[in-house]
Amino acid sequence: MAAIKVHGNPLSTATMRVLTTLYEKELDREFVIVDLRAGEHKKEHFLSRNPFGQVPAFEDGDLKLFESRAITKYIAYEYADKGTQLIYQDPKKMAITSVWMEVEALQHDKIATTLGMELGYKPVVLGISPNATVVEENEPKLAKVLDIYESRLAESKYLGGDCFTLADLHHMPIMHFLLGTQIKKLFDSRPHMSAWVADITARPAWLKVLALQSK
Amino acid sequence: MAAIKVHGNPLSTATMRVLTTLYEKELDREFVIVDLRAGEHKKEHFLSRNPFGQVPAFEDGDLKLFESRAITKYIAYEYADKGTQLIYQDPKKMAITSVWMEVEALQHDKIATTLGMELGYKPVVLGISPNATVVEENEPKLAKVLDIYESRLAESKYLGGDCFTLADLHHMPIMHFLLGTQIKKLFDSRPHMSAWVADITARPAWLKVLALQSK
Ligand SMILES: N[C@@H](CCC(=O)N[C@@H](CS)C(=O)NCC(=O)O)C(=O)O
Ligand SMILES: N[C@@H](CCC(=O)N[C@@H](CS)C(=O)NCC(=O)O)C(=O)O
Repeated sequence: MAAIKVHGNPLSTATMRVLTTLYEKELDREFVIVDLRAGEHKKEHFLSRNPFGQVPAFEDGDLKLFESRAITKYIAYEYADKGTQLIYQDPKKMAITSVWMEVEALQHDKIATTLGMELGYKPVVLGISPNATVVEENEPKLAKVLDIYESRLAESKYLGGDCFTLADLHHMPIMHFLLGTQIKKLFDSRPHMSAWVADITARPAWLKVLALQSK
Repeated sequence: MAAIKVHGNPLSTATMRVLTTLYEKELDREFVIVDLRAGEHKKEHFLSRNPFGQVPAFEDGDLKLFESRAITKYIAYEYADKGTQLIYQDPKKMAITSVWMEVEALQHDKIATTLGMELGYKPVVLGISPNATVVEENEPKLAKVLDIYESRLAESKYLGGDCFTLADLHHMPIMHFLLGTQIKKLFDSRPHMSAWVADITARPAWLKVLALQSK
């Protein structure tokens, strides 16, 4: 039995963030599927792992965590000597990486997730039409954010600096869903952005996480 | 001339987060006021410091950062041996603190800021009425989040553990504005929450930040 356990769902972006980190780090883990359709994440036994009733929840021995980005940071620091280095040891380089991790969580994620919900989840999973007003409001907002990413990636191979880090990795799950929608054009029309997308989505750890979705 | 410069506004919650950290750390700093009413944060010279056009922006020698929570983390790690310890050295304790920092940014801040805007900024600064629908929607949402905080604070003196850390500090600016509104009752009615509020708002560093507002 692995000491590391992830309780989550292979289609949840926050769960995918944690799983990608574990695969990059080549760490053994047990993946416990939480049935979101059955509302398992709102039941007492899950709420004791995450009082907000959201996946993922995480265990490493007797340490229990939730919030995907707190979990990925813990893994990156605690297992610094395993697999891919996902953080910098140098405090100034790490501070810049940390800026782009905040940008992902606070400037990118909300808009991107709203668009992913409307253009991906609603039509594909629920079989209902997207709310056109919500899409029209959020698409230009995302374009503005991606303009800033494009400038950043014109001067730096990855968001955090010259190496792939958590700052890039945290974007991958929602980006993956958006690439299957009309939003793909916002990536394609920005050359540095699309080179970055091609690079990071080809990573073996990421392909392993995607493979979990077809099981 | 101090090596550390904060470009921001004394009434901005994100700026206050950074200033409080600097006062806790007893670090010299230069505070450069950005005139938000004059739209200075959307002008070229400021956008080169933060492409999102938001305060604060930060410098420490030739290191330039934005995003308040990336800045506070940098300060806490880089100046670990100065003033108040705002992080844990122990990776497991730090991971728990990190969970509550994510909770602040991703579960608490949006709802709290929306209420602060409606019940504080609009009536007090702009002289217009709050949007009652927005308030009615968000007040119960905040109450639910605060129930989770109340449980956490029943088992732990501070959010991150037994010491005051960035996880507590990050909440202070928006909490301060909410304490001047009808939302205060949500804090007062939760005994552990209100003891925590009383404790952290009495900190000398915090009082110094508030004093900047009346200058
Ligand atoms: N900030 C949280 C967000 C987690 C989250 O939103 N999880 C979604 C799946 S990706 C979920 O559990 N949704 C169900 C719900 O919120 O009821 C994290 O990063 O872990
Ligand atoms: N996530 C950013 C948020 C910064 C932010 O929202 N700043 C506000 C003042 S508290 C601002 O500059 N607002 C003006 C604007 O967004 O145009 C941070 O924490 O630094």
